[in-house]
Amino acid sequence: MRAAVLRGPGDVVVEERPVPEPGPDEVVVRVTSVGVCGSDTHYYEHGRIGRFVVEAPLVLGHEAAGVVTAVGPGVTSPAVGQRVSIEPGVPDLSCEQCLAGRYNLCPNMRFLATPPVDGALTENVVVHRAFAHPVPDSIGDDAAALLEPLSVGVWACRKGQVGAGSRVLITGAGPIGLVAVQAALAFGATEVAVSDVNPARLALAQDLGATHVVDARSGSVADLPRAPEVLLECSGHPGATGDAIRALAPAGRAVLVGMGADEVPLPLSVVQERELEVTGTFRYAGTWPTAIALVASGRVDLDRLVTDSYPLARAEEALTAGRRDPKAVKVVVHPQT
Amino acid sequence: MRAAVLRGPGDVVVEERPVPEPGPDEVVVRVTSVGVCGSDTHYYEHGRIGRFVVEAPLVLGHEAAGVVTAVGPGVTSPAVGQRVSIEPGVPDLSCEQCLAGRYNLCPNMRFLATPPVDGALTENVVVHRAFAHPVPDSIGDDAAALLEPLSVGVWACRKGQVGAGSRVLITGAGPIGLVAVQAALAFGATEVAVSDVNPARLALAQDLGATHVVDARSGSVADLPRAPEVLLECSGHPGATGDAIRALAPAGRAVLVGMGADEVPLPLSVVQERELEVTGTFRYAGTWPTAIALVASGRVDLDRLVTDSYPLARAEEALTAGRRDPKAVKVVVHPQT
Amino acid sequence: MRAAVLRGPGDVVVEERPVPEPGPDEVVVRVTSVGVCGSDTHYYEHGRIGRFVVEAPLVLGHEAAGVVTAVGPGVTSPAVGQRVSIEPGVPDLSCEQCLAGRYNLCPNMRFLATPPVDGALTENVVVHRAFAHPVPDSIGDDAAALLEPLSVGVWACRKGQVGAGSRVLITGAGPIGLVAVQAALAFGATEVAVSDVNPARLALAQDLGATHVVDARSGSVADLPRAPEVLLECSGHPGATGDAIRALAPAGRAVLVGMGADEVPLPLSVVQERELEVTGTFRYAGTWPTAIALVASGRVDLDRLVTDSYPLARAEEALTAGRRDPKAVKVVVHPQT
Amino acid sequence: MRAAVLRGPGDVVVEERPVPEPGPDEVVVRVTSVGVCGSDTHYYEHGRIGRFVVEAPLVLGHEAAGVVTAVGPGVTSPAVGQRVSIEPGVPDLSCEQCLAGRYNLCPNMRFLATPPVDGALTENVVVHRAFAHPVPDSIGDDAAALLEPLSVGVWACRKGQVGAGSRVLITGAGPIGLVAVQAALAFGATEVAVSDVNPARLALAQDLGATHVVDARSGSVADLPRAPEVLLECSGHPGATGDAIRALAPAGRAVLVGMGADEVPLPLSVVQERELEVTGTFRYAGTWPTAIALVASGRVDLDRLVTDSYPLARAEEALTAGRRDPKAVKVVVHPQT
Repeated sequence: MRAAVLRGPGDVVVEERPVPEPGPDEVVVRVTSVGVCGSDTHYYEHGRIGRFVVEAPLVLGHEAAGVVTAVGPGVTSPAVGQRVSIEPGVPDLSCEQCLAGRYNLCPNMRFLATPPVDGALTENVVVHRAFAHPVPDSIGDDAAALLEPLSVGVWACRKGQVGAGSRVLITGAGPIGLVAVQAALAFGATEVAVSDVNPARLALAQDLGATHVVDARSGSVADLPRAPEVLLECSGHPGATGDAIRALAPAGRAVLVGMGADEVPLPLSVVQERELEVTGTFRYAGTWPTAIALVASGRVDLDRLVTDSYPLARAEEALTAGRRDPKAVKVVVHPQT
Repeated sequence: MRAAVLRGPGDVVVEERPVPEPGPDEVVVRVTSVGVCGSDTHYYEHGRIGRFVVEAPLVLGHEAAGVVTAVGPGVTSPAVGQRVSIEPGVPDLSCEQCLAGRYNLCPNMRFLATPPVDGALTENVVVHRAFAHPVPDSIGDDAAALLEPLSVGVWACRKGQVGAGSRVLITGAGPIGLVAVQAALAFGATEVAVSDVNPARLALAQDLGATHVVDARSGSVADLPRAPEVLLECSGHPGATGDAIRALAPAGRAVLVGMGADEVPLPLSVVQERELEVTGTFRYAGTWPTAIALVASGRVDLDRLVTDSYPLARAEEALTAGRRDPKAVKVVVHPQT
Repeated sequence: MRAAVLRGPGDVVVEERPVPEPGPDEVVVRVTSVGVCGSDTHYYEHGRIGRFVVEAPLVLGHEAAGVVTAVGPGVTSPAVGQRVSIEPGVPDLSCEQCLAGRYNLCPNMRFLATPPVDGALTENVVVHRAFAHPVPDSIGDDAAALLEPLSVGVWACRKGQVGAGSRVLITGAGPIGLVAVQAALAFGATEVAVSDVNPARLALAQDLGATHVVDARSGSVADLPRAPEVLLECSGHPGATGDAIRALAPAGRAVLVGMGADEVPLPLSVVQERELEVTGTFRYAGTWPTAIALVASGRVDLDRLVTDSYPLARAEEALTAGRRDPKAVKVVVHPQT
Repeated sequence: MRAAVLRGPGDVVVEERPVPEPGPDEVVVRVTSVGVCGSDTHYYEHGRIGRFVVEAPLVLGHEAAGVVTAVGPGVTSPAVGQRVSIEPGVPDLSCEQCLAGRYNLCPNMRFLATPPVDGALTENVVVHRAFAHPVPDSIGDDAAALLEPLSVGVWACRKGQVGAGSRVLITGAGPIGLVAVQAALAFGATEVAVSDVNPARLALAQDLGATHVVDARSGSVADLPRAPEVLLECSGHPGATGDAIRALAPAGRAVLVGMGADEVPLPLSVVQERELEVTGTFRYAGTWPTAIALVASGRVDLDRLVTDSYPLARAEEALTAGRRDPKAVKVVVHPQT
């Protein structure tokens, strides 16, 4: 089978590799669609993200879906032929964090396309049966792959306790900000403000249901008609983070999703006087069933985010499409083509 | 001004009464719409509900909206001319329950149309300023009145922790069950099953978005394709309650909204083995902002529930409409007509 | 090695069995102490508990501690020589309940001394490494075994949200009620009332720190000076359960720990009017670290509960000691003697 | 009656003032003890704290207890003669925050000794009946006054979800840090580490039950044997805050109690990777019943913190005692002497 392999910064080639065999509790998934994430592009360009360094050839891609083609010993579900969405991180299941239901914080997590674990930009991947989530036919291949970024949005909404009637501010209208818009609405938010510096993205946010948009080049989140209760920070921009926290209502919650600098000045006196809660998200736990339900019920439309698709042979182009095309939102690769 | 007064079981007359004056922290509301609740009908027919006995002439009606026509000393908001929805229960604000944010459990609550407090089936009522909630023009008078039953549904969903992707079972498709359907969907539930013995009500539930209906005369909630996570019990029927609790998924929550018998046999071994949480609702606290947001944003359509309207002179007919007309869902009275 | 085997109701013999070998992720524990639980006695007397039927010879005992004597492939912790307390239930770790942190509700749980899984009344048992919890030397062998019933109390307190200043009512002063007393105090409760019909047990409860005792033969939990906020029901008695629920303060929580009848009449109108939460406990999840900390810090004294100890050869006597001796609280077996 | 009045920075005089009269819902309290808080000293020295400026003569003191000597119209409780602890902040009771149970965030809060509201360094004060909390005789006058700082500790523990078996780090061993130590232990924490630069304070922390102390001049909170789960930051020192956050375990909670700079650099990448929750406290809500229970039950000993007492005539000395005497922890004024 073919796999798109990152050999070094700026160097992706399509290689032949043997089709993997499933071990106990594992299934083989023939990959039908893979979303390209900003982290893939970052690895491609820089060969590292923080402490994660690409030291050996690495297959990128962690937003993936496909069809089960083989199952390992003892696996009864999912069965061969089942369409699945892949949850890319598999924890050890038995550490303190896993047993507490916080498996995203497992110190022994193995995560697709995070060195040294190969990802899904290939024709077949091996997945733990419990992390290959069956999807109904009403969810297409691309949407099934994009359940991964939707999970980021779902997790952010959970952390932020977004609920019916919530007023939510989302800073940053990139792919994660845009799934956060859809997730927040699906969680019942009735005011969803989005800020960004890119008018096209703000327009898309509005199309997706955002009730207010703020062009951060000229406007300020401080001028929203009502103070938001929840901030989903998806820009990773320190200034935006501080301003957005200052805009929150008393007892508000700030969820830091976008990765920014290691150390960021925060308005702690505001955090104290209003008793704000500031937290961050690290991946997600238990989000797939919710994400599947939201897409299957029509509450979230992930296909709206897909702006282009590529065959596996052009994976490298896919990895850089976001840099080349300012209108690109979410690019997918179809490894079987 | 005129008021519809219950003088005894089955005896309502329209009387002249003086227009009330607002005291400190109070406003006078000219009532535009009043929903008739089952409790109003019960008082009309039996002169009591449990320990609440009508011992003196009583004005019924506690689902009400109107326009502020006068404000008491020191009141700056809402202002004269403001359209408001009336939250009918005013607690003492300073007891242990109130200070803890559970003002619905205040032992000194004064509640419209609960003896000896007069209700809203009259041209004008006096309301505490904090319980006269401004509504936007996008919410009509009837819908503004019906924010009260919607609040019951919102409170039930909060107690049941209904959220994005929840699977909800609602037993009983009367007016409360039907607002619970809408509330559950607005809270993000993606599976909402409804059981009742009345096919017309089940059809309406489906129109409102219920994903499964169970005709309890022939079917069983045990046969739902997936076990619900949340039960909103709106029938008050002991048998339905037990069966529905048995149908819940592990770690599920049962919220008892409908009033039934004082003592009901519950399947405690199921509660224990699945660690279910069983709780009840008593009115609501802090629900109006949410209810207003849900209706203003179009997520809940209360006008769909209104099947008939009456002028104040025919209040008695309105009180018995539900008994006479099996198709009646929610009847409203317009006191200014 | 020797094992005490239940061959049928009232029939326990000590047999020779091969010492078990540890598989992957497993350790062998040389058992030093085993507490006798009411469920062991019940299996001994009746050969079944509800749907769990002893259909083949079964080793009883699930409250156990010991020393690791061998580890399976890949196990680095706990190491050989480590003293451990055994958590007797091992879930599948990867089902929906496990991934959500509710592993006690895992449908594939394997639990010591629950048919067909053999228990710990033997010289050596095999345990999953993550469920063999290291204990410091400040915790003796018997106390290490009794971390299991303490876990029941810890779990009940968590479910009941017992905290600093809580007012707690515990109905039933058997071993579970008595660990619940200690757990509630360790959780910060400042009023802990205990009801029972056995004056000796009530006296022990008081020695352990209960602030009020109610002899249920003459007194009533309704007469406590202040309404409790939390009920930990440890008697399994339907009448006691109903009375205790009626005694709760508004917004109180009732946790049903004791197993009673399948169906029990509950005062639902009280549950509704006071918005009580009723729930049950099924085993526990994530309690060992807490239980170890409470005993190691001296906040809970489990040795106080041990009234007698037996060698393995007299396991049958140990199983019936509670029936013979009204003063027995907790009996332990020392399998190495 | 006499009152100690701050006329400007460094200028306190004892003046005669009329004894106040209680209005509706108010009681007059003859003050028996007043704790001196760092904020009192700060007002004395600088005439302001942030946006709160002393623009007119102000009576300081907000940690106070006394005896009810008169009650206003309609007040039935507390009665004349009742010993009470005074909760110094009275909210408007009817705003959105109050109705939600977060009355500490009420924008209309009136707080003793916060300009322009006079405080308790006087012989008599007027208090809202619901904020004059009856105390039993087992709580002395000084301890009754110091329920206010204890409330700060109780609130911090609640925000930090300190519970049975928690591992807590407290940075700063001033009076608030020391009540936090006692509160954390009373909440069930079994590991309580304290860091400070003052060895005498660390020794006192240890006397009060701290299990680990860190002299921040030579040691580091990063070296604690186990990562704490909860940080109660009581130093207001930005560097200490950052280091302490970095020391937290995954899913840990940081509660910022000490007031520091408006803007502080925080290690956001750590907050994200470990999904830490950072929040602040602003006063407290609903803490008096808990604080009273903890002291009355002997779990917290506030008298241990009192290092000196002064008559009202020497209030100015009391305000500066903390500056003069490095061994001073908590100084109280007895206004009747």
